[in-house]
Amino acid sequence: MNNERVTLSMGAGGKLSEQLIEDVFLSLYGNDILNNLEDAADLHIDGTHIAYTTDSYTVKPLFFPGGNIGTLAICGTVNDLAVKGAKPVALSAGFIIEEGFLIEDLKTIARDMCTTMSTLGIRIVTGDTKVVSKGEVDGLFINTSGIGTIIPHMNISSRNARTGDDIIVTGTIADHGIAILNVREKLGFVPVVQSDVAPLFNIVERIAHFGNAIHVMRDPTRGGVASVLNEIAKASQVMITLYETAIAVKDEVRSCCDLLGMDPLYIANEGKIVIFVDSKITQKVLECIKQVPAGKNAVVIGKVEEHLSADTPCPVCLKTSIGIKRFVPMLEGDPLPRIC
Amino acid sequence: MNNERVTLSMGAGGKLSEQLIEDVFLSLYGNDILNNLEDAADLHIDGTHIAYTTDSYTVKPLFFPGGNIGTLAICGTVNDLAVKGAKPVALSAGFIIEEGFLIEDLKTIARDMCTTMSTLGIRIVTGDTKVVSKGEVDGLFINTSGIGTIIPHMNISSRNARTGDDIIVTGTIADHGIAILNVREKLGFVPVVQSDVAPLFNIVERIAHFGNAIHVMRDPTRGGVASVLNEIAKASQVMITLYETAIAVKDEVRSCCDLLGMDPLYIANEGKIVIFVDSKITQKVLECIKQVPAGKNAVVIGKVEEHLSADTPCPVCLKTSIGIKRFVPMLEGDPLPRIC
Repeated sequence: MNNERVTLSMGAGGKLSEQLIEDVFLSLYGNDILNNLEDAADLHIDGTHIAYTTDSYTVKPLFFPGGNIGTLAICGTVNDLAVKGAKPVALSAGFIIEEGFLIEDLKTIARDMCTTMSTLGIRIVTGDTKVVSKGEVDGLFINTSGIGTIIPHMNISSRNARTGDDIIVTGTIADHGIAILNVREKLGFVPVVQSDVAPLFNIVERIAHFGNAIHVMRDPTRGGVASVLNEIAKASQVMITLYETAIAVKDEVRSCCDLLGMDPLYIANEGKIVIFVDSKITQKVLECIKQVPAGKNAVVIGKVEEHLSADTPCPVCLKTSIGIKRFVPMLEGDPLPRIC
Repeated sequence: MNNERVTLSMGAGGKLSEQLIEDVFLSLYGNDILNNLEDAADLHIDGTHIAYTTDSYTVKPLFFPGGNIGTLAICGTVNDLAVKGAKPVALSAGFIIEEGFLIEDLKTIARDMCTTMSTLGIRIVTGDTKVVSKGEVDGLFINTSGIGTIIPHMNISSRNARTGDDIIVTGTIADHGIAILNVREKLGFVPVVQSDVAPLFNIVERIAHFGNAIHVMRDPTRGGVASVLNEIAKASQVMITLYETAIAVKDEVRSCCDLLGMDPLYIANEGKIVIFVDSKITQKVLECIKQVPAGKNAVVIGKVEEHLSADTPCPVCLKTSIGIKRFVPMLEGDPLPRIC
C-alpha cells in the first residue's frame, strides 16, 4: 500500500496536476478523445459534431469583485466550449450545498447565472442539488457541464500550432486570480482588482469565418498563460517565444503581482483567450476581436518559432524588455487553490 | 433580507427538495425541458435526439458493501440516461478532492469506475480535477454528467402514465439506502446488506422493442419508490394503487427497516427501475426483464387506477396485506443525507 497523498499543488493546473491526471485517470481510462486533454472533448454522435466539457467550481470567496461562483460556473464552461470552436447549446448544473447556507445567497447566485445565460441564449436543461451537513463542504460547490455544436470549417486543437503562427491574447492577463487573492487574503489593494470573468463565445463567433486559419484556442485559467502555452507547445511539438513588452497587465494587477512576488503569466484568467493564427491573417483577426468589448485590448504576445528540439529544457521562452531570453516552464509549485 | 437557510431535508429528494428547486432554480431558469424534472433532459441537437443528465455524488462512506462512490457515479448517471430510453454514449467526470486524500484510494475508485464503464462500452471523454484544503470537503465528491442517444420509437416520460398501466419494479427495494446506513451508523446488522448499485441499460435494451407501450421509467434513488411514484402521479395526473404483498424486500433489509422505524418505500435504490407499461404487455415485459440478472426479481407492485381527482390528499395508495388502504405521500422529513 502506497501512502502517497493528494496535495494542493496537484490541483493547481501545473505540472503536478498533469502528473496526477496521467497517473490516476489517463493510465486507466485514457482514450483517443480524453488523451487530448483539451478544454472540451470533440465528439461525433449520430453524425452531429459536438463539443462536451465539464468543470467543478470551488472558488473562495463565493462572491468577488466582478462576479461570483455562479457567473464563473457559466462562463468557465461556456468558454471551454467556445475555445473548441463550438457554439454553446445546453448546460447541466450540479449544486453541492452546505447545510445552513443562506437561501438568499443561493438565489443571488442562481439569478446571476441566469443573467449570464440569457446574454448567450443558452439554458440549463438538467440539474442536481445535494445538501451535505455543516462542515462537510465549504459553503457551495457548483459543477457545470456543457454541450456545444462545433462550427463547420473550424478545426481547433492544441496540436495544431504551426511554425510562424502568431499568438494573440484577447486582453490583459492575471485579472481573475489577483481579484480573488486580493479579497481572500484581505490584501487591501486599491483600486480593487476586478475579475475578468466573462463569456467569450462572441469573440469566437466574430472570427469563425477565418475557419482553419485559426489553429489553436485555449482559455488560460488555472496555471495561467504560461501553463497553457506549455501544454500547446508540447501537444504541437513546437517552440514558442513571448515578447514581454507586448503582454498587457493592468497597473493594479502588476502592483499586486510585484508585491506578492508572483508572475502574471502564471495567474488565472476567466475572460481571455489565447489564439494561435496563421500570421497572414493576424491583423484581420485582431481587428475582428477588438470589435467585441471583451476583446478590445487584444494583442499579439508571441510567435511559434520552430519545431521542438529534443535538447530544449523548456519549449516556451520570454524575450524580456532588455532583450534577454528566459524560460517560462509549466507551473511547478505555488499552489493557488480555489481560484476557480 | 430573508434569513432562511438550506436544511438537510432540502436535499433528501422529497417534498422540501422539490420546493427548494422550484423556489430557487425553476422560478429563475425554468424552461420546457428542465421543468419536466425528469432524470435526464430530452434534447434535439442538429437533428440528433439525445438525453443529457448530471448528478453530484457525495455518498458517505466512500466505500460501502457492494460498491463505492466511483461505481455509484457511473451507474447513477448511466441509469438516468437508461430510464429516459437512451443508450449511454459519453460521460464527463469532475473530481473535488480533499488535500491529503490517499492516492491509492483514488486509484481504486477510478479503477472501479473503469470496470463499470467497460461492461457498458462507454467512456469518460472530458474531466476536471480540483483539490481543496483539508476540511473544505469531506474526502471526495464526484460529479458525472452523461449523454445518450434516445432509442427510436421509445417515448418515455413521467407524464405518460395512463389508467390501466401496470407498475413493475425490477427487484427488491431499499437495498442501497440500508447498505449505506448500516455501515455509516455502525448498526452492525448481519448479514451485511449489500448495495444494489448496478448499471441498468441492459434491462432497458431488452425491453426497447416494446416501443411506446412502455410509458414511464424512473430509477427510484433519493426519496425511494414512494417519492418517484408521487412525482409520476403528479406529472401524469393519475392515481396509483400499490399492493403491499407484492413489494419485494430482502429479509435483512426489512429487519433493518423495522428496527430503525423506516419504510422501505422511502429508501434509496441504485439498481432498480420503476416501469409503467400497458397492461396488455406486462407479462411479456416481465419475461424480458427477468432474463437479465439485475432484473431476475422483477415484479408488478401496483397499478394506475384512474385520473387524479381534485379532492385527493395524495395520489398514491398502498393496499396492505390485511386489505386496508393507506396513503403513501412524498417523503416529507427524515433526511438521510449523503446516501448517493
